Amino acid sequence: MRISKDQIQDINNQELSSHENDFGRLKDQLNNKGIQVDTILERLANFQVAIPSWALGTGATRFGRFPGGGEPASLHQKIEDIGILHALNNSSGAISLHIPWDIPSDPKSTRELAASLNIKFDAVNSNTFQDQPDAKHSYKFGSLSHVNKEIRAQAIAHNKEVINYGKALGSDALTVWLADGTTFPGQANFRQIFQNTLSSLEEIYSHLPDDWKVLIEYKPFEPNFYSMAIPDWGTSHLVASQLGDKARCLVDLGHHLPNTNIEQIVSILMMQGKLGGFHFNDSKYADDDLTVGSIKPYQLFLIFNELVDGMANTSNSEPAWMIDASHNLKDPMEDLMQSVEAIMIAYAQALILDRKALTAAQLNNDVTLAQELLQDTFRTDVRALVAESRKMNNAALNPIQVYRDLKIRAALIKERGNNTVSTGL
Amino acid sequence: MRISKDQIQDINNQELSSHENDFGRLKDQLNNKGIQVDTILERLANFQVAIPSWALGTGATRFGRFPGGGEPASLHQKIEDIGILHALNNSSGAISLHIPWDIPSDPKSTRELAASLNIKFDAVNSNTFQDQPDAKHSYKFGSLSHVNKEIRAQAIAHNKEVINYGKALGSDALTVWLADGTTFPGQANFRQIFQNTLSSLEEIYSHLPDDWKVLIEYKPFEPNFYSMAIPDWGTSHLVASQLGDKARCLVDLGHHLPNTNIEQIVSILMMQGKLGGFHFNDSKYADDDLTVGSIKPYQLFLIFNELVDGMANTSNSEPAWMIDASHNLKDPMEDLMQSVEAIMIAYAQALILDRKALTAAQLNNDVTLAQELLQDTFRTDVRALVAESRKMNNAALNPIQVYRDLKIRAALIKERGNNTVSTGL
Amino acid sequence: MRISKDQIQDINNQELSSHENDFGRLKDQLNNKGIQVDTILERLANFQVAIPSWALGTGATRFGRFPGGGEPASLHQKIEDIGILHALNNSSGAISLHIPWDIPSDPKSTRELAASLNIKFDAVNSNTFQDQPDAKHSYKFGSLSHVNKEIRAQAIAHNKEVINYGKALGSDALTVWLADGTTFPGQANFRQIFQNTLSSLEEIYSHLPDDWKVLIEYKPFEPNFYSMAIPDWGTSHLVASQLGDKARCLVDLGHHLPNTNIEQIVSILMMQGKLGGFHFNDSKYADDDLTVGSIKPYQLFLIFNELVDGMANTSNSEPAWMIDASHNLKDPMEDLMQSVEAIMIAYAQALILDRKALTAAQLNNDVTLAQELLQDTFRTDVRALVAESRKMNNAALNPIQVYRDLKIRAALIKERGNNTVSTGL
Amino acid sequence: MRISKDQIQDINNQELSSHENDFGRLKDQLNNKGIQVDTILERLANFQVAIPSWALGTGATRFGRFPGGGEPASLHQKIEDIGILHALNNSSGAISLHIPWDIPSDPKSTRELAASLNIKFDAVNSNTFQDQPDAKHSYKFGSLSHVNKEIRAQAIAHNKEVINYGKALGSDALTVWLADGTTFPGQANFRQIFQNTLSSLEEIYSHLPDDWKVLIEYKPFEPNFYSMAIPDWGTSHLVASQLGDKARCLVDLGHHLPNTNIEQIVSILMMQGKLGGFHFNDSKYADDDLTVGSIKPYQLFLIFNELVDGMANTSNSEPAWMIDASHNLKDPMEDLMQSVEAIMIAYAQALILDRKALTAAQLNNDVTLAQELLQDTFRTDVRALVAESRKMNNAALNPIQVYRDLKIRAALIKERGNNTVSTGL
Repeated sequence: MRISKDQIQDINNQELSSHENDFGRLKDQLNNKGIQVDTILERLANFQVAIPSWALGTGATRFGRFPGGGEPASLHQKIEDIGILHALNNSSGAISLHIPWDIPSDPKSTRELAASLNIKFDAVNSNTFQDQPDAKHSYKFGSLSHVNKEIRAQAIAHNKEVINYGKALGSDALTVWLADGTTFPGQANFRQIFQNTLSSLEEIYSHLPDDWKVLIEYKPFEPNFYSMAIPDWGTSHLVASQLGDKARCLVDLGHHLPNTNIEQIVSILMMQGKLGGFHFNDSKYADDDLTVGSIKPYQLFLIFNELVDGMANTSNSEPAWMIDASHNLKDPMEDLMQSVEAIMIAYAQALILDRKALTAAQLNNDVTLAQELLQDTFRTDVRALVAESRKMNNAALNPIQVYRDLKIRAALIKERGNNTVSTGL
Repeated sequence: MRISKDQIQDINNQELSSHENDFGRLKDQLNNKGIQVDTILERLANFQVAIPSWALGTGATRFGRFPGGGEPASLHQKIEDIGILHALNNSSGAISLHIPWDIPSDPKSTRELAASLNIKFDAVNSNTFQDQPDAKHSYKFGSLSHVNKEIRAQAIAHNKEVINYGKALGSDALTVWLADGTTFPGQANFRQIFQNTLSSLEEIYSHLPDDWKVLIEYKPFEPNFYSMAIPDWGTSHLVASQLGDKARCLVDLGHHLPNTNIEQIVSILMMQGKLGGFHFNDSKYADDDLTVGSIKPYQLFLIFNELVDGMANTSNSEPAWMIDASHNLKDPMEDLMQSVEAIMIAYAQALILDRKALTAAQLNNDVTLAQELLQDTFRTDVRALVAESRKMNNAALNPIQVYRDLKIRAALIKERGNNTVSTGL
Repeated sequence: MRISKDQIQDINNQELSSHENDFGRLKDQLNNKGIQVDTILERLANFQVAIPSWALGTGATRFGRFPGGGEPASLHQKIEDIGILHALNNSSGAISLHIPWDIPSDPKSTRELAASLNIKFDAVNSNTFQDQPDAKHSYKFGSLSHVNKEIRAQAIAHNKEVINYGKALGSDALTVWLADGTTFPGQANFRQIFQNTLSSLEEIYSHLPDDWKVLIEYKPFEPNFYSMAIPDWGTSHLVASQLGDKARCLVDLGHHLPNTNIEQIVSILMMQGKLGGFHFNDSKYADDDLTVGSIKPYQLFLIFNELVDGMANTSNSEPAWMIDASHNLKDPMEDLMQSVEAIMIAYAQALILDRKALTAAQLNNDVTLAQELLQDTFRTDVRALVAESRKMNNAALNPIQVYRDLKIRAALIKERGNNTVSTGL
Repeated sequence: MRISKDQIQDINNQELSSHENDFGRLKDQLNNKGIQVDTILERLANFQVAIPSWALGTGATRFGRFPGGGEPASLHQKIEDIGILHALNNSSGAISLHIPWDIPSDPKSTRELAASLNIKFDAVNSNTFQDQPDAKHSYKFGSLSHVNKEIRAQAIAHNKEVINYGKALGSDALTVWLADGTTFPGQANFRQIFQNTLSSLEEIYSHLPDDWKVLIEYKPFEPNFYSMAIPDWGTSHLVASQLGDKARCLVDLGHHLPNTNIEQIVSILMMQGKLGGFHFNDSKYADDDLTVGSIKPYQLFLIFNELVDGMANTSNSEPAWMIDASHNLKDPMEDLMQSVEAIMIAYAQALILDRKALTAAQLNNDVTLAQELLQDTFRTDVRALVAESRKMNNAALNPIQVYRDLKIRAALIKERGNNTVSTGL
């Protein structure tokens, strides 16, 4: 299923005068502060955050899953769903594939479909946290870190295979999220886990094309509950440094112990040129995988401050962005649109921040003023700016409203039925 | 499958002299402190902690499940497994049933089987956190707290049905763990959730036999990630107080925010006569559902101190004990034996504590001495005491060793095959 | 020192056209949504949050204190400082006294001074967490909960004395924050701590005038590091319920374990008619006592949602509001103005929320829409609304700017010197 | 004040037969397992953990301080107190000096005093978290990381001076605990903080004698509440790596976010040869600075497992050990003896662990057995082993008992009075 620019336009037109009113005011306000609105609009329009192929279906907890209807049953249907999102919000023009949930059996047609929807192939994801029906070995006690060399070899081969799939589609990065670790004290030797992990990654790294990156994700717990092979940014950074320049760290917002200052980690990793990937979600307790910005929008803004600052003032190139949330209760498409909106708002706010004044306040240790500057920006209602960047690209002024007005979920259910189940968790 | 006393005795005999040596020393040591060893042995022997019917199979995280072999495929097989445990450790003489995972379709034969293994039926557990295939309504957005009266009615009816099953088996308590709550701010009104929950529980309470209790479990998050209908002991206590004397609170060790002082909660609830149930497990991060005592054995001891003190010095009757862990990596039987052993050790240590001296130290604000007394007890190796209480009842001196020597898992696999799957999470 | 309305007016005038522009737009926007702007302005203008008498000086950590200049050296100077704040922001028209740091030796002149600045006397605070030079007994091991009856009597007498001071000034509430607890396991018996605390509070309660309230604060840790006498809302509620209707709970934003859902606690306490006091601050890690809204402004908004909803739809009367922050780095006056501004913004946003639509979304389990409604409100820039409510009352459009333009701190330093030290922590 | 070997011997003699009984049993038990008891006794006897010079007085929270009596008023009195500790427990033969709280004005006599008590000078500690009366610049907004070069220079000079003091006494390490950081978002630029810190440390490093080490401590929060210059092991490791081989990381048990797996950090740092210092304490909530082993003794044992394993199997030399606790309620001497006892017990348990069997279990992924091995060790009562190592060196079988029997605190009060105040927090 696809939606046309005309469908969007028609609904946009109903909101147009109201939007132009709002945008005009905001533009004046920003112009008065000497902000180049056009440059910002362009940067907003260019910002694309990948949707993972497992995100179009209903998510689950270990206690159960409550499916919705019209879920995409194939990779192509997933790409079509992302096509709808991208048509609506102009910021979802990338897909991040998960292997083996979404093996591209016919790469050519898959590429053509994606190209027709203006969707790129972002980082590909391997999976050694589940056993596959035909697998010789089980990952019950680890994969890349396993004490058994044959099991490590199986996991390494899988990662190489994933790289190959990615090459066929035009990706240029492999994301390794390693569920390996231990659930009880004494279960394994920490140094051996580290060394096995590192040596496995070295083999994968050697298979990496020259223009690729491997992104090393970290997570403090779950699915292992005593230790993880790569629990924190320090370990990820240590591994990535030892692997080489094509290895980078990946920050997932939900993968931190309570109260961690994530923005500082982002800043330090960028200073080191080592921030390669970024997974968006939100959380209140643990790796809750909630809609981006639904719990801590100010933290999101503070993180974007560092991202914008780091991209401007360090050697760190733009990281690979991806939404990594679980859609347990909401329509996954609506949930994703809310996430993207929160990201764009935080990005826009970070872009309009008066960094010169902030730096001056910092040099004066004027803590009050520094806070005033950050909060002035955060309290500014930039939604019209984000909407304008969409409108300029024929996307929806209000994506969720258009999605609802066009009754897209109902159409998907009609097309696919109520009981399809997407691959994923 | 069953194991005979003779099988156990044969293996015990190999360890006998070593055990008698150890126990003799410990007995002397305790006698010197004026401790009545016989009384303690009797209390240890009488302590029975229920095994839940879902605990005999491999557990899972949301990321996957790695099954073992020989899992019990029916309620009767589960009871047989508990029978083996109880024969080995003499402390697992109770089962806690989960409905609808383990519906007793033939209560009479189920009772007879359990009686033949000396197993009682402890609290029964309802489940409104998953949808059942034939259910009219979904619990996606709640059950007892749902905004829709019909859905609440369905959940209430289910709980009444669970009571009926429990009556048929000889249980005398219903455990209500409510997964209800919200995953996003604004999703529901907190007061309405509370009022709906309370009024649903009132209907269930009215169906409760006179000699039954309803145990109200609390949990701060998961599977909902913004709020839970009954998130903490304060809410559980408020609900239980409003319901009446047959309603009690249930403490699960894994259901607290980081750093919570659980022993204080135990103490206060017992002071109020409101501690009705206790679920054992251990955790490092969240509701990890690990083997009891595998992470924080000193905390377990401190909690048992309060339990022993509360049973002696308050009106609170003995709570319903249950192990509520998830066996993701270990053989569930071995895991349960480790949990029970940790419980018995903590209980034994709490029993030998010199409370008179502790009270005197407290009245003198002699903080050093109070700590010395607690730690002297905790550092005492009481394993021979626990083993002796087993030996006196013809159980195994070392249950795991006997389990391994008798190759019980291999026998179960031979009997049931490698691919049976237990109902549960 | 005082500032005149004319001084403020002069600076306001420079911003006036810009403000009127902004306010006009916002008013249109709100009117279009059917919001009664005048009513909201009135509610904003009536909202007064107390400044505690210890907040006008520099705060400290256990590692040190870095004083600023011009700190008020007497109670009257403190009241004058609050007078300046209130003149600037029209929302700080109350003081919360701490005894014995600020004993009103001449209540009549103190009342007259406060009245002349339009400042009321809010709840009075007792202190049994520090020893006083002339005290007979030490609170090293507790006060109201102490095992020694004489020490409890001393602490009870102190609280009664505080009530008397409060009566002399026109307060109508006593806040009891109890630092009592234990720092090591075994140090005391939890039930005895509770019972001693309760019985001490009963004696204080009996001394309470009929129209007074006693506010029972809770805190999970610090200065005691193993247990606190009143660690959580559940205990506070239990105590307040047993004391009677004049006893209420007090929520301090920094007094919760990591990740606690504070807004739910607020909602449930108001449902029970038991929320009597509210202390504002913000925190990232523990009881950091940071500027309100500086870390988690969205949480602040969600809490205000419950406060506004609770005041409208429960029997709970308006709680006593107070800022309870520590000003370690910023000018205390500026810090307080930032806190008040954050409070007013959150309050304004909670007031313009479309509750009818939210309730409808909740009844439909339309989680997406519920989130949209909350976030639409939070993303709305309501600063002009808050500024207008100040302007209508001759206060500053931008309090911090006026404070800086008038060089108030410099004047205070000139008047009081650089080395005065305020009583407090 | 000093105590003689005879005084200790006299009291030991009363416990001797009981001890020999206990030790004999334990020795048999360990011999049966093939453990070389003599080797372990020697290692225990050689283990010396430094007492910091600020630990002999009463500690404080930001809310207050409740002093005890007989506190040492001078450096020499502090060394005498440590002399008493060391005479009693044979494991406190080192002092860690804090400058400027304890400036050795007469190094020669200080060295002689310490030598006479068999006390060595361990790492020296600098202090840039407090302002000194005569200081030109304030550290209110940082020291080594300050934006102002002159203030950094002052802090650098102070650290060099501390090295000089240390050289005069025979120390060979400088511990840098940096309180620098920010308390509010925006207050400073994270990269600039890092770069300033690093460059300041480079200057200090260049002043370091060849055989010295500089130990870089990390801490996530307090006294700054938004970010710390060196918040975690990753940053400490990054800094230490960039400085060079003489720079090492320092782990303080209380300096971690909730639920951190500290033993894994220890293992990885030792694998990298970068663990240079270790500060012992315990905590339930934050940096509570409680008696070692008073809250989480099993965690302490797990950490010692890694320390023992790392010292045996990595290139990491033995770290500098120190107790870093705050004695708010207990007699500091008793508190320190309890800490040392907990350390020695954990160390002894780690030494008797059957590592061969553990490794075999790990290679088999026999999680149950691995846990059995760890817990068997932890549950073994090794106190007689620790006591024997003391007895062999003429120290006390039970240090606290001897301390109390000899009425040492009373003697100290008599000698020094009730109102002396030690320098420190």
